[in-house]
Amino acid sequence: MEITPQMLDDNNKNSLYNTIGIRIQQAVDGKARSELKPETAVCWPFPGQPHGGVLFTLLDSTMAWAVLSQIESGYNCATIDLNLHFTLPAKGDFFSCQAEVTHHTRRSCFLRGDIYDRNSNLVAMGQGVFRIIQMDFPSKTL
Amino acid sequence: MEITPQMLDDNNKNSLYNTIGIRIQQAVDGKARSELKPETAVCWPFPGQPHGGVLFTLLDSTMAWAVLSQIESGYNCATIDLNLHFTLPAKGDFFSCQAEVTHHTRRSCFLRGDIYDRNSNLVAMGQGVFRIIQMDFPSKTL
Amino acid sequence: MEITPQMLDDNNKNSLYNTIGIRIQQAVDGKARSELKPETAVCWPFPGQPHGGVLFTLLDSTMAWAVLSQIESGYNCATIDLNLHFTLPAKGDFFSCQAEVTHHTRRSCFLRGDIYDRNSNLVAMGQGVFRIIQMDFPSKTL
Amino acid sequence: MEITPQMLDDNNKNSLYNTIGIRIQQAVDGKARSELKPETAVCWPFPGQPHGGVLFTLLDSTMAWAVLSQIESGYNCATIDLNLHFTLPAKGDFFSCQAEVTHHTRRSCFLRGDIYDRNSNLVAMGQGVFRIIQMDFPSKTL
Repeated sequence: MEITPQMLDDNNKNSLYNTIGIRIQQAVDGKARSELKPETAVCWPFPGQPHGGVLFTLLDSTMAWAVLSQIESGYNCATIDLNLHFTLPAKGDFFSCQAEVTHHTRRSCFLRGDIYDRNSNLVAMGQGVFRIIQMDFPSKTL
Repeated sequence: MEITPQMLDDNNKNSLYNTIGIRIQQAVDGKARSELKPETAVCWPFPGQPHGGVLFTLLDSTMAWAVLSQIESGYNCATIDLNLHFTLPAKGDFFSCQAEVTHHTRRSCFLRGDIYDRNSNLVAMGQGVFRIIQMDFPSKTL
Repeated sequence: MEITPQMLDDNNKNSLYNTIGIRIQQAVDGKARSELKPETAVCWPFPGQPHGGVLFTLLDSTMAWAVLSQIESGYNCATIDLNLHFTLPAKGDFFSCQAEVTHHTRRSCFLRGDIYDRNSNLVAMGQGVFRIIQMDFPSKTL
Repeated sequence: MEITPQMLDDNNKNSLYNTIGIRIQQAVDGKARSELKPETAVCWPFPGQPHGGVLFTLLDSTMAWAVLSQIESGYNCATIDLNLHFTLPAKGDFFSCQAEVTHHTRRSCFLRGDIYDRNSNLVAMGQGVFRIIQMDFPSKTL
């Protein structure tokens, strides 16, 4: 479905993204981009470094939007599995993320994604599978 | 090192665990247990269901404590990779988690862990590797 | 479906298992056991050590039988993903493997499995997802 | 180290690659390419389709050569973990594989890799970590 800037704006206000510091920037044709300005509360145990779970949340969310941009209206998605490798300690107050659908069947999407720090160093890389489920996508729930 | 109840109490007050709703209960001999009472803010996009990234954070944290309970004082650990499978939609306000070191070399720990809902249904299962790093473990940073 | 000793005997003669040295021993109620006596040709680059791909083949096959023991007649399965951690160098001429279905939906099975050497040391651990597909399971093709 | 065509030729004659049908074509600057013409014996249980373990072996081997092309002489590598997603049934008698080091520390290499069928359809994608070990790399053992 087409993911409009308005849909992204509305959804970027959700409580999870706000708690963590996530903003989805674009989702089109099976690709999505996002950024993370991690909230202080989730930079633990190392000050100035978002927890690995924060990076997972960023990547998983960005992948979900990549899926949504490619499936029909009236469908949603759920993560089946996601594998994340942490290549470098993630230091700093800004990270960018991109995700891409690599293969799409009727019921599943396979994806890859990366997270980079401000200096374009790769800090995490992931791949996973999402199930496509028949379910309304009301702007308010996603 | 020995993880005392006092150390857990102190660390359970950290900002990340409070934001999400995590509490580590025990860590001894390479095994750790924890529970999640997910905060409303991180139950999104489906109300009443903690985000997958919340489950990742819970498992990753519990694994880290399992590692800490097995390594010498003066060392800490960092996740190299963690693979998470979501077996069931995670519904409810209470989850339990357990993690265990399956193999330990001088520089790495391999682990497995599970997350269950209140009815003891498996909602997520994971396995991963942590690197052991030489670094003080001051109660205040971890 | 019920996996009889006769079915296992017939299938254990297949070309792949013979090339590698795999024998499935039992598959019942979502659990399966197997053993590996690795052929010399697949112990490379380190003599006396089966290649990691041999261990993957062993675990993947054992998982498939665990799935087959739990699904209805007329269905088969295919691996969606499998994640394998190598905990120790796999040395020796005998290995045992066990796999177990941890969760079963209508269309997928989640599994875990382990490989041990002769001294019961864990040499590899894995987890993955299999898709259940509608397809005859003729003894001769599986 | 520099991987010369002569080194590849010598090593491509090893028993594992011959049993399966693997040939490494190039390994330079942390990238490697290979091809698979699967032997009939390893196309099981579905005739004309190499087993998933064959694809794992192909990817794992290609990744190892990517690592070798980037590390110093006198070192070798061993797989810590490898995660493989099977996007499509792998049908046919020819497959190509490429792998790339995405991050390199003193003791580990992170990699990604893909396998394509003759029509350039993605049939498997993987990512993993290799440990770098101090060990001679005699042409005859690798």
